[in-house]
Amino acid sequence: MSEREPLSLVLFSGTDDRLDSATMLIAGAAASGRSVHVLLQYWALEAFRRDSIRKDHGVSAEAGPEGASVLGRWQEQNPVHWSDTLRQVKAMGRVRILACSMSMDLFHLAPGDLDPMVDGVEGIASFWAGADGGSVMFV
Amino acid sequence: MSEREPLSLVLFSGTDDRLDSATMLIAGAAASGRSVHVLLQYWALEAFRRDSIRKDHGVSAEAGPEGASVLGRWQEQNPVHWSDTLRQVKAMGRVRILACSMSMDLFHLAPGDLDPMVDGVEGIASFWAGADGGSVMFV
Amino acid sequence: MSEREPLSLVLFSGTDDRLDSATMLIAGAAASGRSVHVLLQYWALEAFRRDSIRKDHGVSAEAGPEGASVLGRWQEQNPVHWSDTLRQVKAMGRVRILACSMSMDLFHLAPGDLDPMVDGVEGIASFWAGADGGSVMFV
Repeated sequence: MSEREPLSLVLFSGTDDRLDSATMLIAGAAASGRSVHVLLQYWALEAFRRDSIRKDHGVSAEAGPEGASVLGRWQEQNPVHWSDTLRQVKAMGRVRILACSMSMDLFHLAPGDLDPMVDGVEGIASFWAGADGGSVMFV
Repeated sequence: MSEREPLSLVLFSGTDDRLDSATMLIAGAAASGRSVHVLLQYWALEAFRRDSIRKDHGVSAEAGPEGASVLGRWQEQNPVHWSDTLRQVKAMGRVRILACSMSMDLFHLAPGDLDPMVDGVEGIASFWAGADGGSVMFV
Repeated sequence: MSEREPLSLVLFSGTDDRLDSATMLIAGAAASGRSVHVLLQYWALEAFRRDSIRKDHGVSAEAGPEGASVLGRWQEQNPVHWSDTLRQVKAMGRVRILACSMSMDLFHLAPGDLDPMVDGVEGIASFWAGADGGSVMFV
């Protein structure tokens, strides 16, 4: 497959519904031949802590109790966690996941605190340099 | 008007303030000569159910009671629902609205459950194929 | 530095965590040589009121009490407000901030009600005209 324009995605939210959606978008973009550059900020960065990436991260407030229970039943029937899907997608080579240096400071995190699928730490200027000539998205 | 680069928009949120905003952005993009490709996911897909598209979908948590009452008064004075605006914009021909197949499964929806302005169901790979050479946005 | 493709950013959310994130993204994009065009809608427009831009705008619901207290401690240790950072970035010349005309009507705002760093009011068609040939983002 020929090279497509890259996707640079700022992942800000850390609820399981948005992380599920972001994972599917990243997987689809990589499968379509795009390289994908993910910058983890704020609550998304928190969600990638090594010791809690698989814990329950809640859902968007707008889900309400009814929406949360729909997602809960779905997860029982489809027990592959978004983090496992993302790890598989990463193994295919088109996806890089970086932690925002400012958010690392904010949450007093060191690189060793994060899930090994996070490739490193970067500043926002580096993120933008990599975004030239491609699409950007904020989730 | 000459052809502009397309806009591919993932609509994830299903609150009326975000659906209002998305509708205005879609209308403006189409009026500016862009073709617009909308993928409905999660709470946005729920909001497009045929039997409840015009019901109250609430507002973002950040609105608070005061913000919600501002929007409520606005809707009394400007009673055109976002879904009617979107339907009119669609009738002009530059907008396609697709339901994400994974979210259809999640909510146990069939195409007949959705408002007729939804053109069909697609997977995320198809969404990305259509996004080549254009802008992307996540709302 | 040579001219890079512009960034057009719709700022919808008005919580301090998202406004912090948006400010860092805008600052980084401008520092990378992009011109940045910001359209303020809904809760973000409310946050730019002259009389309350520096007040506490809360955080995303997903933060929870623990996340809110992490941000609170951070702000005590790093007391530069996002609005001051944004004002400094604007002074360097690559950033324009416009208020969405529809949201101005919604909140019954006049231009004089907004912080002076807001350059004016525009409609969504004008936003899209300026977005040609660049990246778009919704925060």
